[in-house]
Amino acid sequence: MSLLLAVDIGGTKLALGVADLERFRASGRLERIVKEPVPSPGTPEEVIARSIECARELLEEAGGGLSAIGISIGGPLDHESGTVINFPHLPGWRDILLRQILSSHLGAPALLDNDANLGALAEHRWGAGRGVKDMVYLTISTGIGGGVIVGGKLVHGVGSAAGEVGHVTVETGGPRCACGNPGCLEMMASGTAIARRAREAVEESRSANGRAARLLELASGDPRGITSEIVARAAREGDALATELWEETAEYIAIGLGSIIHVLAPRLIVLGGGVAQAGEQLLGPVRRRLREHVFYVPIDRIRVVAASLGHDSALLGAATLALEEI
Amino acid sequence: MSLLLAVDIGGTKLALGVADLERFRASGRLERIVKEPVPSPGTPEEVIARSIECARELLEEAGGGLSAIGISIGGPLDHESGTVINFPHLPGWRDILLRQILSSHLGAPALLDNDANLGALAEHRWGAGRGVKDMVYLTISTGIGGGVIVGGKLVHGVGSAAGEVGHVTVETGGPRCACGNPGCLEMMASGTAIARRAREAVEESRSANGRAARLLELASGDPRGITSEIVARAAREGDALATELWEETAEYIAIGLGSIIHVLAPRLIVLGGGVAQAGEQLLGPVRRRLREHVFYVPIDRIRVVAASLGHDSALLGAATLALEEI
Repeated sequence: MSLLLAVDIGGTKLALGVADLERFRASGRLERIVKEPVPSPGTPEEVIARSIECARELLEEAGGGLSAIGISIGGPLDHESGTVINFPHLPGWRDILLRQILSSHLGAPALLDNDANLGALAEHRWGAGRGVKDMVYLTISTGIGGGVIVGGKLVHGVGSAAGEVGHVTVETGGPRCACGNPGCLEMMASGTAIARRAREAVEESRSANGRAARLLELASGDPRGITSEIVARAAREGDALATELWEETAEYIAIGLGSIIHVLAPRLIVLGGGVAQAGEQLLGPVRRRLREHVFYVPIDRIRVVAASLGHDSALLGAATLALEEI
Repeated sequence: MSLLLAVDIGGTKLALGVADLERFRASGRLERIVKEPVPSPGTPEEVIARSIECARELLEEAGGGLSAIGISIGGPLDHESGTVINFPHLPGWRDILLRQILSSHLGAPALLDNDANLGALAEHRWGAGRGVKDMVYLTISTGIGGGVIVGGKLVHGVGSAAGEVGHVTVETGGPRCACGNPGCLEMMASGTAIARRAREAVEESRSANGRAARLLELASGDPRGITSEIVARAAREGDALATELWEETAEYIAIGLGSIIHVLAPRLIVLGGGVAQAGEQLLGPVRRRLREHVFYVPIDRIRVVAASLGHDSALLGAATLALEEI
């Protein structure tokens, strides 16, 4: 039996999965998945040692030879050399030859890409994007990342940095994003951004009138407790302030998608991540507002849909990456 | 001898070229080019009849069999069916099966794409983009168009509308573009937009102080006579208002390119068209300002250069399209 190994290194979570190569090729399912907290404090030595240990256990249980390894990590990296340039969520991750290290310890070829690209790859191969040649995937959660598929293939770009769709400018001269650019999509429409904008709106309107009442109530009276989920919930209930905030979020997403659509005119846009779990509550206004931003591209022929794979899409993408290189 | 025929239908100009297939494959040069005004008033019947007439003359002179036809036109079209959906510059162009008509009259397979995509294809194959896999081409003249090359291939997108890079949003809530979207790159940084912004600035500052003096002088005292060339010239001379307008233009272009770079992280950006003929006067500030908008993509590894093929790039691209399909 030939096995595939998938490794997903996150800021807080380490996940590994194995599958029989031929069964995975047919089904897109990992047969065994383990998830655990990243060993503290998370230096490359610790995380890599633990990954190798877990991998050996999984492979032994599965009983077969390892054919290929796919690795996912959430930071700037070089796809070709398999080097992690930087992983800002954990200490000491600078210029780590991750692909080479895992490959030599586990005795199989390995490939590395970032989690958002691999989420896109998985959605394309096994999820909402099956059968489509050109698609753009966005994951809207605490931040906004994504990946681009053109002609059925993942676009890596310089430094594997294609698909940094969260950093398209949507509010010219707006608040500066963590990346340094003013008014990024991530800075205006991520879960973190929705909560920040809601807190600001609540602080502004609290003394003036009762507009903030429902949001404050859902946050047990403390504006710092407002989350994007609370905004989504209050908007579903019909709360006026939450509805405004939600529509504004849809508008920012539509401006960002509009720019992406003008560049690539992809057949499909797939929205994943926690914020997109609002489903039609988000997709409806985004589709409607896209019609106010896109005219020269036939927007009727571009579908905007929810991701279908859920939380393990990066891990699934890592296995797919391994599969595609065999 | 096997011949290629290229046809470029513009709003005012009709251009055709022929080349020996094998010589073109080696050199990227058309051997005979004819250009003439579009026959008035420019209905599809007239333009197509004249194109066929010109083509027959050229082919007879060249003496050989026609292998393939490439056709360029500047409007929305369907690449796959070879249909011109709409060509707003001339009357009556709606759903014209241009590829099929030219193919059947001239007895060779034909392919159709828009002028900006074909400019990109030509720059990639024969110009500034030779040897690069991933590039984005922008032509900045009265409008802003472009084309996208990924993995060495032109990206067509839905309705052949990929590469509509002039309609990326760069001024949120800004003036409404002819397309309908507020604050498009084309609306802020095309030659037409530079002239408009300059006229507005001159009207504003004329009575207040002497800031508008040099721009007005170059336009013979009439603000309506201000062109983007005049702004470029006054900026080169060091005029303060013109320099501000020019830097603002570079900023808009950098915001637009920044968004494109975050999506595709292409190795190369090629700027063509009349406004880009300012060369380093435009490229310098654009490159500098890109560093204020792009952080997560390694901007040092992305080259921003001038186009190298000049006015005939769409015609050359049409011949290249024909060549690539043989």
